[in-house]
Amino acid sequence: MKALKNAIETRGHFINDEVLKVDAFLNHQIDCSLVDEMGNEFYEHFKNKGITKVVTIESSGIAPAYATAIRLNVPLIFIKKTQPSTMIDPAFAEVFSFTKNKTYPICIEKEYLKKGDKVLFIDDFLANGCALEGLIDIVKSSGATIEGVGIAIEKGFQKGGDLIRGKGIRVESLAIVDGMNAETGEVFFREQ
Amino acid sequence: MKALKNAIETRGHFINDEVLKVDAFLNHQIDCSLVDEMGNEFYEHFKNKGITKVVTIESSGIAPAYATAIRLNVPLIFIKKTQPSTMIDPAFAEVFSFTKNKTYPICIEKEYLKKGDKVLFIDDFLANGCALEGLIDIVKSSGATIEGVGIAIEKGFQKGGDLIRGKGIRVESLAIVDGMNAETGEVFFREQ
Repeated sequence: MKALKNAIETRGHFINDEVLKVDAFLNHQIDCSLVDEMGNEFYEHFKNKGITKVVTIESSGIAPAYATAIRLNVPLIFIKKTQPSTMIDPAFAEVFSFTKNKTYPICIEKEYLKKGDKVLFIDDFLANGCALEGLIDIVKSSGATIEGVGIAIEKGFQKGGDLIRGKGIRVESLAIVDGMNAETGEVFFREQ
Repeated sequence: MKALKNAIETRGHFINDEVLKVDAFLNHQIDCSLVDEMGNEFYEHFKNKGITKVVTIESSGIAPAYATAIRLNVPLIFIKKTQPSTMIDPAFAEVFSFTKNKTYPICIEKEYLKKGDKVLFIDDFLANGCALEGLIDIVKSSGATIEGVGIAIEKGFQKGGDLIRGKGIRVESLAIVDGMNAETGEVFFREQ
């Protein structure tokens, strides 16, 4: 997606050759027009897959997931990183965070994901794929199926993309970054 | 807002006479059409206030805040409950959570809120107003001004609404619940 690649190049910050900071337009301050266009791209990719639920993990995926779900005319579920006191019958999975170097639980109220549901998972980043593996565990245990994954920015130099596609799951990333040079500010996008 | 009151009555769960569970349509599973209508209501209330930024605190406010910000054609900022490792120059405030009975910090990257910014704050609930007081601290320290507050569900039997309005801040709530009866499932809405 051209506008997203342009935003990464002009408004992204490169902390080092592996960490890309996109909080100017995606995961702290949100450029709503850009995110709306992302929602439209994801919609075009998955509109014929019979999606019944869009799912994301709080918080940075919520805006693009909402922009997608409203076009697909289906509910959006955001999986929680802390269990609310009001949750009645939760399903859990464990996610390892490379950034924080620790494992944390994610949870969903079971009644919102059922056998027969066709899930589209949307998130801001795909790096090592750990959050996605946790999500796959939760979806599988519910009896629902994952019909696809929509990612804003895939780090092509980390293993998540290969890992998830290797499970036979369709992954559509709007920008795949194969490398960055923090010194020069150059970004190397994969041809798509 | 009629559709929201209807959703509270038919899809809300009353844990007790003070706790209303709306995770079927607002803060876990999201009814996107309903949230889109909320965004339109907030837009109509505040469209002539010269808003430059919509602000919310992660996570449940993000969807309605996004639906509002895209109509106002301004960026949305979601304030963080944990400081990301990539944050360069954060401003902090302390928030007391009655639900969790503890104080937690919230933070924002300073560069996204500046003197001259006119802020519309959007959130899912207004109860004791503690999160909002933290937000007010952060906005004031940035030199920006709060032009208004848009709330999906105000608990009229708790002190937040009076507290914030008492500071001279305009608060527009789409539904004000003055009481609930967990036994009968009755909700008492304030006439607006």
